[in-house]
Amino acid sequence: MTEIDIAALDEVDTLASCRDLFDLPTQTIYLNGNSLGPLCHASAEAMQRVVSEEWGQDLISSWNKHRWIDFPLRVGARIAPLLGAAPEQVLCCDSVSVNLFKLLSAALALSKAQKPTILSHRDNFPTDLYIAEGLRDLLQQHGAQAELKLVATNALEAAIAEGPAVLMLTHVDFRTGRKLDMAKLTRLAHQHGVLVIWDLSHSAGVIDLALDDCQVDFAVGCGYKFLNGGPGAPAFVYVASRHLQQIKQPLQGWMGHKAPFAFNPDYEADLGINQLQTGTPSVLAMSALDAALSCFEGVSPADLNRKASALSETFLSLVEAEPALAELRLVSPRNPEIRGAQLSFSHDQAYPISQALIAAGVIVDFRAPNLLRLGFSPLYLSFADIAASVSILNRIIVNNIYKDQQFSQRKRVT
Amino acid sequence: MTEIDIAALDEVDTLASCRDLFDLPTQTIYLNGNSLGPLCHASAEAMQRVVSEEWGQDLISSWNKHRWIDFPLRVGARIAPLLGAAPEQVLCCDSVSVNLFKLLSAALALSKAQKPTILSHRDNFPTDLYIAEGLRDLLQQHGAQAELKLVATNALEAAIAEGPAVLMLTHVDFRTGRKLDMAKLTRLAHQHGVLVIWDLSHSAGVIDLALDDCQVDFAVGCGYKFLNGGPGAPAFVYVASRHLQQIKQPLQGWMGHKAPFAFNPDYEADLGINQLQTGTPSVLAMSALDAALSCFEGVSPADLNRKASALSETFLSLVEAEPALAELRLVSPRNPEIRGAQLSFSHDQAYPISQALIAAGVIVDFRAPNLLRLGFSPLYLSFADIAASVSILNRIIVNNIYKDQQFSQRKRVT
Repeated sequence: MTEIDIAALDEVDTLASCRDLFDLPTQTIYLNGNSLGPLCHASAEAMQRVVSEEWGQDLISSWNKHRWIDFPLRVGARIAPLLGAAPEQVLCCDSVSVNLFKLLSAALALSKAQKPTILSHRDNFPTDLYIAEGLRDLLQQHGAQAELKLVATNALEAAIAEGPAVLMLTHVDFRTGRKLDMAKLTRLAHQHGVLVIWDLSHSAGVIDLALDDCQVDFAVGCGYKFLNGGPGAPAFVYVASRHLQQIKQPLQGWMGHKAPFAFNPDYEADLGINQLQTGTPSVLAMSALDAALSCFEGVSPADLNRKASALSETFLSLVEAEPALAELRLVSPRNPEIRGAQLSFSHDQAYPISQALIAAGVIVDFRAPNLLRLGFSPLYLSFADIAASVSILNRIIVNNIYKDQQFSQRKRVT
Repeated sequence: MTEIDIAALDEVDTLASCRDLFDLPTQTIYLNGNSLGPLCHASAEAMQRVVSEEWGQDLISSWNKHRWIDFPLRVGARIAPLLGAAPEQVLCCDSVSVNLFKLLSAALALSKAQKPTILSHRDNFPTDLYIAEGLRDLLQQHGAQAELKLVATNALEAAIAEGPAVLMLTHVDFRTGRKLDMAKLTRLAHQHGVLVIWDLSHSAGVIDLALDDCQVDFAVGCGYKFLNGGPGAPAFVYVASRHLQQIKQPLQGWMGHKAPFAFNPDYEADLGINQLQTGTPSVLAMSALDAALSCFEGVSPADLNRKASALSETFLSLVEAEPALAELRLVSPRNPEIRGAQLSFSHDQAYPISQALIAAGVIVDFRAPNLLRLGFSPLYLSFADIAASVSILNRIIVNNIYKDQQFSQRKRVT
């Protein structure tokens, strides 16, 4: 690929102008949007307004005046189209982990399976597994036969056929970027009477999701990765409308009550997606995410998906054209159809290489023991950024720059 | 009480200068800090810095560079002295409701009682009851004998003597401001082998708490009331150090793992208070609370308690001196020793009276069906504010101002 080819890709990029919505540091190519999305101007402005005017001046009246009270529903409604979900099935609240606990509990209660078994695979995102373990242990402490069954990814289909109560999967693997086949696995699960929960943390905002079309039962996802909602932004939760009136979730705080301000001692759940709320949501955190979602207005998930794939394909083509980069082993699928907006390479010097890249303005991350991870957000990356980052990577490898002592000293890794 | 008496109280008020730390609207007397604390300058500055510099410029490196990763522990450590708690027992995370679920589950597992019964009283804050119901229902769904027993407040002592597993109480009643005797009830519970969870949502920041001295087992509390952490600020959770190595809580997300970045599929809890963490905390929300806590530096809980009592006592004395105000019936205890930093009055026109007060710049709140609620924060209220607010209240009643139609139209109430 020549410079002219790259320029041509940028020329026809319909999302190119979205870059201007973001406040990225100068001289930086940010390939870490799969970990923490960057600040957009709209979020900075919203925070200023919400802090100084809404909280500072209007104080408690803002719950009505600025509709703070509807925030979880309003932000959920903004996320829904990115998930391929009709309205009133998505809510923004709490963290992925907390929301997953709600969904796992609700799904176990809803399931017609004889035993409360949760099926997942050992490569799932660890916090999802921890939460499932936590629920299992809680139930076992009180004498229930709850079980968490973890299998290898290639053994999932056979294990689904055994008919567990709930199948819990992450759509895009955080290490490798491998994307599971949502339509196929959901269909298979339903054939065996299994309810499915998908974690979309590395999918929302970059993949053309179709939750409704796939008849997904439940989903959760992250607000601070490709949705750019800010560090530790609230998460989202999806419940298919057909389940909304049947479910019951245990973290039933006042904000999920039908009439929270009646202050009745007995809980009566809201009948809609709002029943997934628990305590009072952070208005500041939710304002930043709400504003960040404005960057997706007028952008289709299909466009996002197409450009994210093209960015990572371009990166790979350029890497494959550089002989020195052959020592980086691709651990992501080579086929973009089964890959998220991420590439991971293994290298026994992955840590110093990642540090040398960061020092040169290419922000990537490292995952122990030997993974270099790169995220490809279609909203703020250009094809020229991709070409520049491969060129910098090549220079770091060819010139052994990463062997400089400053890059090998291990900092605390987040 | 004369104007001279009031001026004298302000003259000797050692907390008077704290008022300057806050960015209150002009011409406003804010008696609603029990619902939403106001913005302080430090929070506004912190938000600006964290958004623009830390998130905007330093991006992912901020987890280390700006110690985002330690936020829950650092903010917890700042709250601890306000609770009468030695360090390393307090953590800031999630909402009161979510944290209460963790503690209830942990306490039930830790209890030696034969049956998993939670005891509380029907006047407890509704969301606390909803969460206990939610846990009970979850356990019952899976065949456990869990029970939630609710009694009248005056029947608590007898019910404690029956030896339930866990006693869950709110220290200061959100309706009446009545304060329970923490030392006495905790001691009685322990005599009967009962573990105790206190909700300090209306206590922290205004009452001279002594969790360690009272040998409290567990506590939760709110960040957005008297701690002024911003709308929906993260909550806090306290676990007595003697229990830290024995407990297990089910919302065990990766942030509570001993080594979150090892990404092991099996959960291994942090041995300290950090095990109460679940998902990634909101850095924006926590920054605002962290900065707000700087307003408490150099201020002792005893001083806060003393001034808060003096403010509400002054308010009451002035009300009692106005014949027209006799139609307001005090539903809070008359004795300040058994009262939080709050006064509630019932009046069949409480709603229009509250609206007329707000229109006159005295921000109070209304709770259905007929309560006028006023909070007395010692950090930003002067005795002159108190005198002015009683004078305005008197004018509204004497002149029947609240009967104006503009005040009777019911807005949505939060």
